[in-house]
Amino acid sequence: MTPSRPPFSVWAPRPERVRLLVGGETVEMTRDGDGWWTPRGDVPSGDVDYGYLLDGDPTPRPDPRSRCQPDGVHGLSRTFDASAYDWGDGGWAGRQLAGSVVYELHIGTFTPEGTLDAAAERLGHLRSIGVDMVELMPVNAFNGTHNWGYDGVLWSCVHEEYGGPAAYQRFVDACHATGLGVIQDVVYNHLGPSGNYLPLFGPYLKEGRNTWGDLVNLDGPGGDEVRRHILDNVRMWLSDYHVDGLRLDAVHALADASPTHLLEEMAIEVAALSAHQRRPLTLIAESDLNDARLVTPREAGGRGLDAQWSDDFHHALHVALTGETAGYYADFEPLSALAKVCERGFFHDGTWSSFRGRPHGRPIDRAAMPTWRLVVANQNHDQIGNRAAGDRLTARLDDDQLACAALLTLCGPFTPMLFMGEEFAASTPFQFFTSHPEPELGRATAEGRIAEFASHGWDASEVPDPQDPATFARSRLDWSEASTGRGARMLEVYRSLADLRRQLPDLTDPAFTDVQCTVDGRLFTLRRGRTLLAVNFGGSPAVVEAPGMELLFATPAGASYDGERVSLPAHAGALLA
Amino acid sequence: MTPSRPPFSVWAPRPERVRLLVGGETVEMTRDGDGWWTPRGDVPSGDVDYGYLLDGDPTPRPDPRSRCQPDGVHGLSRTFDASAYDWGDGGWAGRQLAGSVVYELHIGTFTPEGTLDAAAERLGHLRSIGVDMVELMPVNAFNGTHNWGYDGVLWSCVHEEYGGPAAYQRFVDACHATGLGVIQDVVYNHLGPSGNYLPLFGPYLKEGRNTWGDLVNLDGPGGDEVRRHILDNVRMWLSDYHVDGLRLDAVHALADASPTHLLEEMAIEVAALSAHQRRPLTLIAESDLNDARLVTPREAGGRGLDAQWSDDFHHALHVALTGETAGYYADFEPLSALAKVCERGFFHDGTWSSFRGRPHGRPIDRAAMPTWRLVVANQNHDQIGNRAAGDRLTARLDDDQLACAALLTLCGPFTPMLFMGEEFAASTPFQFFTSHPEPELGRATAEGRIAEFASHGWDASEVPDPQDPATFARSRLDWSEASTGRGARMLEVYRSLADLRRQLPDLTDPAFTDVQCTVDGRLFTLRRGRTLLAVNFGGSPAVVEAPGMELLFATPAGASYDGERVSLPAHAGALLA
Repeated sequence: MTPSRPPFSVWAPRPERVRLLVGGETVEMTRDGDGWWTPRGDVPSGDVDYGYLLDGDPTPRPDPRSRCQPDGVHGLSRTFDASAYDWGDGGWAGRQLAGSVVYELHIGTFTPEGTLDAAAERLGHLRSIGVDMVELMPVNAFNGTHNWGYDGVLWSCVHEEYGGPAAYQRFVDACHATGLGVIQDVVYNHLGPSGNYLPLFGPYLKEGRNTWGDLVNLDGPGGDEVRRHILDNVRMWLSDYHVDGLRLDAVHALADASPTHLLEEMAIEVAALSAHQRRPLTLIAESDLNDARLVTPREAGGRGLDAQWSDDFHHALHVALTGETAGYYADFEPLSALAKVCERGFFHDGTWSSFRGRPHGRPIDRAAMPTWRLVVANQNHDQIGNRAAGDRLTARLDDDQLACAALLTLCGPFTPMLFMGEEFAASTPFQFFTSHPEPELGRATAEGRIAEFASHGWDASEVPDPQDPATFARSRLDWSEASTGRGARMLEVYRSLADLRRQLPDLTDPAFTDVQCTVDGRLFTLRRGRTLLAVNFGGSPAVVEAPGMELLFATPAGASYDGERVSLPAHAGALLA
Repeated sequence: MTPSRPPFSVWAPRPERVRLLVGGETVEMTRDGDGWWTPRGDVPSGDVDYGYLLDGDPTPRPDPRSRCQPDGVHGLSRTFDASAYDWGDGGWAGRQLAGSVVYELHIGTFTPEGTLDAAAERLGHLRSIGVDMVELMPVNAFNGTHNWGYDGVLWSCVHEEYGGPAAYQRFVDACHATGLGVIQDVVYNHLGPSGNYLPLFGPYLKEGRNTWGDLVNLDGPGGDEVRRHILDNVRMWLSDYHVDGLRLDAVHALADASPTHLLEEMAIEVAALSAHQRRPLTLIAESDLNDARLVTPREAGGRGLDAQWSDDFHHALHVALTGETAGYYADFEPLSALAKVCERGFFHDGTWSSFRGRPHGRPIDRAAMPTWRLVVANQNHDQIGNRAAGDRLTARLDDDQLACAALLTLCGPFTPMLFMGEEFAASTPFQFFTSHPEPELGRATAEGRIAEFASHGWDASEVPDPQDPATFARSRLDWSEASTGRGARMLEVYRSLADLRRQLPDLTDPAFTDVQCTVDGRLFTLRRGRTLLAVNFGGSPAVVEAPGMELLFATPAGASYDGERVSLPAHAGALLA
């Protein structure tokens, strides 16, 4: 923990002189040996706007730890007293990930209003489909008014258009009142392309780049303060905002050669915070490593995170449903890939990855690791949004196929994560959108997007312009879809599956070794305990031997069961016990 | 999980014939190949009394899985529909052990009434002293009206005098409404000396004895059904009664040579149940092994229990406070024993145990194991009740010494467990009491107790007769003590420490490696993060260097602090940060 420091203190080892501009006044600051500056004179209390004047630069820069940016990421910061909020969640004992259902949403497009307060009005809907934890795509400040959030720059600031930090507190409180935990998506592996003034203050970045930008300095000179900057941000969400867990963006892009990796240090600090707050606090990694040591307890030599996203489940299921085999989908073409994923967690567990041109992953210790450590989805912001047109499964699949996707996600072995709107078969796409005010950056972003897809054979006209406000508008959920036709039918499917998931202990059994799959042509079965999940991915009817069971669920086309075998129409799925 | 079976089914591979006596009628039963018997004819529904007639024996025997014994352990069983209760704890998300404070109580002596309903009226008091989880000494049926509970025989039955199973449900519901978790003490290592009819039904026991009785058959022929009997009992508490965790009595006395030890199997099933119920479920062992593999995650090759009692903390603290060095206290004579316990968890971590005449224990992996896995107490039912006169620390220590015991327990590195009444310096003893109706058994129990203490030099007149109802009566808490004099002073101490424990994150920091102790004569200090805990066990004043801190707590005699050093009178303790 950073020792408590006077208000307006800032770590800025780079400049020779730092002045605080606050409430229109300029206050000289004094530097200590560690590069921390504190105001020399009196400073106002209460909510005020402020910024830092670095050396001779006349433009005030926002606080690297800013909580509020009323005029965007280039403007002045505003103080925010996080302790002023009167929390109503005194009885909240937390929400554990094991057994839970997660729901990923983007505040800007979840509701017509695009705000935290508007999102809070939809929490009852989430409870009704069995959601336990809401996962918010990044809400920290980014350039422009709308963005997925991965262009964020001020990690401690809640984006003004979403309602700012006060709205965020209200939102979390409302979630807890509804019995929902909150997971916040945070991005520590890069900074967005505009509004990142950190390098003016100190060595926040280091040599080298990952997919998204300059590397964050986690292990070079000054890296200890950069790590502290991140770890204090973790504490901020979990303490000041009562968040229940974090989703850590692309941890494979954190370049850290320290003896104790940042993620393990985070796990240690969060475990301590969890004991202090006497509630479970969850760390979920997005990882492209297929290495379960990330989510292995520290007592077993792992890094001690709780869970990680597993794309292999998505890819295997997506290919089985759609038949798409381009790019990284190629290796998942045989239906046996889905069986391997369900039985062993990773498809690539040391096997050859044709997409990567090298072997990928390592096996999971199936005898001990609980299945819920893998968070899976049949759709998520990336898998939809990184398609040229941001189209969902709804664009290509029939109702039964959609219901089979839900069945395998909600009743399969892993922690299910739904993407907003999938529960009512939203027809709206989730396209890549930005709103960079700088024309050149906007143009570069749009051109980069088109060029990326052109290299995969797409025509420029098929790729929506990320800077076009219509692209953002199209990506908003249309809630009227939830109550009619296909949406209403699918909502009924999700509610039924959520109920079954709560009733049947086998469906949340964390033992890998209890999962047994078969593949016969396009027919897939998954047995756990007394349950049988069967999906006919093929276009012709199929039959599964299942003597002495009960048919508990069938996808809309129906399934017939005669006490001995279940007959599935094309694309249909069923659950028996 | 046992497959669901018809009502009144019973596992009884021993007898050749089993008849069900129910509602005054006798119903023949049919045996299957696994030794399970089911009624051949119609059976009544609703609450009825019943028993089993085994072979030619005319006396009906209680159901091994009886939920209710209205006329004691020798009488008929009564059906109990656990699903009938209308639970009010739908919003209960569980209570995790990490960071929590546990409070051990005995239903029969906690209140004047000695019932679950009466205990429920004291829950507000428990919250006021920072308790998070209530641990009930065994409540399952035992011979007679009052007993500590370790003479229990019918593991699934709630003792009638406590209020029976319906009262138990009300109690747990009331705890949850107050924000308290419930841990139930369960005894699977032996059966009590009277009312154990299990051997008439099947091979529940096997050759050999431990300290308390015949060994339970966990690994011999038929042992799989005995294990199922135990594991279903675990499920019963956690599912039918919404309990949050179990305290497993004397697990070192479970003789199990199976490849998967009963405790690991239990950990696996409880983890699955926890995912199903989406709340933390905790398994705490009483273990005399000083082997942390018991509480090491299965992913690290351990048995996967959550925590275990650690007597070493008690012994080191008890010796430091009282100077007693008889029996197993001998090795703990140097004050450095307390320092070793706080820094490394076990004092005996491979060191010589003079009491055992052999080396004892093995070291803890301090780099990874969280400190909260050790549950510690300065008094508990055993450490008080196994003294000849069942006298508490209050009988020998002054107020400052009592407050120091509280300080080290509540603000030390481990999970604190209080014993009922210690928070108001109860002067009432907790003596060993029984109420065996059989005169011979009663006499044998009393004589055994006297003989045991005679061998340690006690006179028979100093050892209370366990069968004397006055012994039970004396052991009841006197709640009037909580509001006057010493009791009120001590209650204030406990409340202050509970507040500090919640405020200062360092006090629940689970890192062993952050604990640093010093011993100087009779002066003990424990530093963690920014906190300093100092206790002067000696009879003369002492001084501790502690520049630039703040004095947050001092025991009743007070402590003075001048910004540089804290001065402690004899027996005083203090907490600074």
